[in-house]
Amino acid sequence: MSNSNSKKIILSEQDMPKQWYNIQADLPESLEPPFNARSGKFATKEDLCQIFPKSIVEQEVSAERFIDIPQEVREIYKIWRPSPLVRAAGLEKFLDTPAKIYFKNESVSPSGSHKSNSAVAQAFYNKVEGTKRIATETGAGQWGSALAMACEMFGIECVIYMVKVSFEQKPYRKSLMQVYGAQVFASPSNQTEAGRKVLAEDPANEGSLAIAISEAIEDVINHKNTKYSLGSVLNHVAMHQTIIGLEAKKQLEIAGDYPDVVIACLGGGSNFSGAAFPFVMDKLQGKKPDLKAIAAEPSACPKLSKGVLAYDFADNSGFTPALKMYTLGHTFMPGGIHAGGLRYHGASPLVSALVKHKIVESAVVKQRAVFDAAVTFANTEGILPAPESAHAIKIAIDEALKAKEEGKSKTIFFNLSGHGHFDLTAYDSYLSGKMEDYDYPSEKVDEALCHLPKINL
Amino acid sequence: MSNSNSKKIILSEQDMPKQWYNIQADLPESLEPPFNARSGKFATKEDLCQIFPKSIVEQEVSAERFIDIPQEVREIYKIWRPSPLVRAAGLEKFLDTPAKIYFKNESVSPSGSHKSNSAVAQAFYNKVEGTKRIATETGAGQWGSALAMACEMFGIECVIYMVKVSFEQKPYRKSLMQVYGAQVFASPSNQTEAGRKVLAEDPANEGSLAIAISEAIEDVINHKNTKYSLGSVLNHVAMHQTIIGLEAKKQLEIAGDYPDVVIACLGGGSNFSGAAFPFVMDKLQGKKPDLKAIAAEPSACPKLSKGVLAYDFADNSGFTPALKMYTLGHTFMPGGIHAGGLRYHGASPLVSALVKHKIVESAVVKQRAVFDAAVTFANTEGILPAPESAHAIKIAIDEALKAKEEGKSKTIFFNLSGHGHFDLTAYDSYLSGKMEDYDYPSEKVDEALCHLPKINL
Repeated sequence: MSNSNSKKIILSEQDMPKQWYNIQADLPESLEPPFNARSGKFATKEDLCQIFPKSIVEQEVSAERFIDIPQEVREIYKIWRPSPLVRAAGLEKFLDTPAKIYFKNESVSPSGSHKSNSAVAQAFYNKVEGTKRIATETGAGQWGSALAMACEMFGIECVIYMVKVSFEQKPYRKSLMQVYGAQVFASPSNQTEAGRKVLAEDPANEGSLAIAISEAIEDVINHKNTKYSLGSVLNHVAMHQTIIGLEAKKQLEIAGDYPDVVIACLGGGSNFSGAAFPFVMDKLQGKKPDLKAIAAEPSACPKLSKGVLAYDFADNSGFTPALKMYTLGHTFMPGGIHAGGLRYHGASPLVSALVKHKIVESAVVKQRAVFDAAVTFANTEGILPAPESAHAIKIAIDEALKAKEEGKSKTIFFNLSGHGHFDLTAYDSYLSGKMEDYDYPSEKVDEALCHLPKINL
Repeated sequence: MSNSNSKKIILSEQDMPKQWYNIQADLPESLEPPFNARSGKFATKEDLCQIFPKSIVEQEVSAERFIDIPQEVREIYKIWRPSPLVRAAGLEKFLDTPAKIYFKNESVSPSGSHKSNSAVAQAFYNKVEGTKRIATETGAGQWGSALAMACEMFGIECVIYMVKVSFEQKPYRKSLMQVYGAQVFASPSNQTEAGRKVLAEDPANEGSLAIAISEAIEDVINHKNTKYSLGSVLNHVAMHQTIIGLEAKKQLEIAGDYPDVVIACLGGGSNFSGAAFPFVMDKLQGKKPDLKAIAAEPSACPKLSKGVLAYDFADNSGFTPALKMYTLGHTFMPGGIHAGGLRYHGASPLVSALVKHKIVESAVVKQRAVFDAAVTFANTEGILPAPESAHAIKIAIDEALKAKEEGKSKTIFFNLSGHGHFDLTAYDSYLSGKMEDYDYPSEKVDEALCHLPKINL
């Protein structure tokens, strides 16, 4: 039942999905398990339980297709969920395209991004298992603010290692985490051996998500009753985010539509997984074989498009088990693009497996083109997008213009993962004409790829 | 029909009110008209048409109870409206109060505040009458960003004079206006005679809404095809904002509830009017005689509580017609509190009339107590409130604690006029213990009241 006068398609709280979707049930082949480079063996559940609560580890390795969302998590989701699905009629008109463009607006969460979807779930499972303190890392700060708020709501202490370039570019994200009661350190910090080592070699180091992960994990190992929490990459995080795509499917059904193209930006992969997997499920199950699912990557850090598929560490120091993923190398330091959430060397093993099997594709965009798209979106749809989300907008615009060229209608769905109210220094830089573009840094990547862990399976 | 499991009560776009409520139809006595101090006569519609479009002037003086919301305005409202009504169950639980607390979440608009409700309407009426350029002032920047976005959507040029203290405290608000294509000057500026005069006397002047209004009006007078737009105080602005309370009434009806107390913060009065008038209507019409409607004011600028009811200018220089309102004097310079939107010397003539007749009451709160309430709210309801909105939260908490003391249930409704994602310097100042409190500045007010215009009616 389509209502052409509706701008937003709204689900009731009662219709909010009661289960997450676990794509591990539908993969063409099982994921290769994490590898513990120190022991020379595949990582066991026991290994993972040293830093994660047991229920999270169970989700990480589960092959169940649907997993219940606990009532307590659903109650907190209701603060902002179900989020609106929006028909981007203003953008369509501006582009003069025959394509229909829909986007899911995840910017309405209290932290301003999709990250809250997994933060609340992870805080809940930790609470149940008696965790008193959680350590994590954050890039652009979206994950940190989401986890800080979630921890506050469950009465858990929260310690955050924030990538230094973002800490400096986005001081307000740090303040938001502090309002939610978290302790925030610029990473590389002096709090950990890993941080001190980086600073000793390079005191001006701007940090990276991989370094910050090393610091957070070291913090967990050295503190009692403390667990680690990761905002992306891992299977359970991807699964928690599927609430986005599951809601969107219901909403598109209300609109009488189904996407031909699904687009989301990709940093570690949680946002892409959340938006795309419930649709990719239909492709994997043969119901929508021609679905295009596109992960939008920055030219400064294009792991799916230019990386190698190999076992690599999730962090900079090699604390974590190695994951089989597309990677630019765990020592790779991406340029300081404003989409801090996309500055990560590796892609989720789930997304990597889907790219390997050509179920999912990737597209690379440059920073200035991304901000062109962001400003076009703000001026036609009203909402100021996060720079990360604008990568998806750029690809959505390209797809809509292609439809126009081909004179074909097409349904495009993308995820607006967050708002840009914390990113106005980036917009300032764009408006003043001072924004740099970043080419693919092939030499830096070649160098980093030399440091992949040597794993003989 | 109450559903105790609902966190948010959502209206469909189809159920969004199709008319605004004009409280002029229900006042105990007609408003005293604006007075033109230069001509020594009451201001005529023709006077007002020099700076406003005709349809806006008609609304300003209309006695029609309900006025249609144009379809074009409703279409843009749908980007974020109807906004959610939220049951603040987390806050209730924290306070352990028998009171029920509801709030309307206006922070979901693209500009992050309620201001978009009138901005879109005003840009539309200007567009219809051929205005090419709109000049305005902004305090904290909420109004400026709302109008910039609205003008962009209707293809109108937008020039904004932004109070200097906010321009400096909130540079990101300025950038947001610029993304929406507006030109922004820190006020007092060198662009106008009014600004230059203030700067000549006091080069370090931090600005005030009253000075910025002078600058914007002077700009309008000196430019072709340019009209003025005000974000608060006037009757038509208050009316555009009633969409808030009208939606809330429908939503509370769905919840099977009706408020005993309605609370909103008051700067010029648009937010308070918007949230409260549709309920105050029931009081004026005898349907809810015991309704408490409370305007929350900062101790730094308490015009309703400590001002005088007199004719005074809306601006600092006396360009505008004088309005009959509660005022602290148009030359009064409030302290630099972080709730920039509440730093205005006068209160809307409509709200003033209702206070005079004891239909509406006011309450004064100090800055640190406001931020205590803001942080409590963020940590129990997840959403970071704007400092302005936190004035209402503080009073709502007081009312809920009173209900607890009295052991009585009570239904409290307040408006969350905006989010605090642009206000994190303020939160920083609070968290670091450096935030100042402001007492009622009685000497400065006494001095300012000497400069009220001499009007002999």
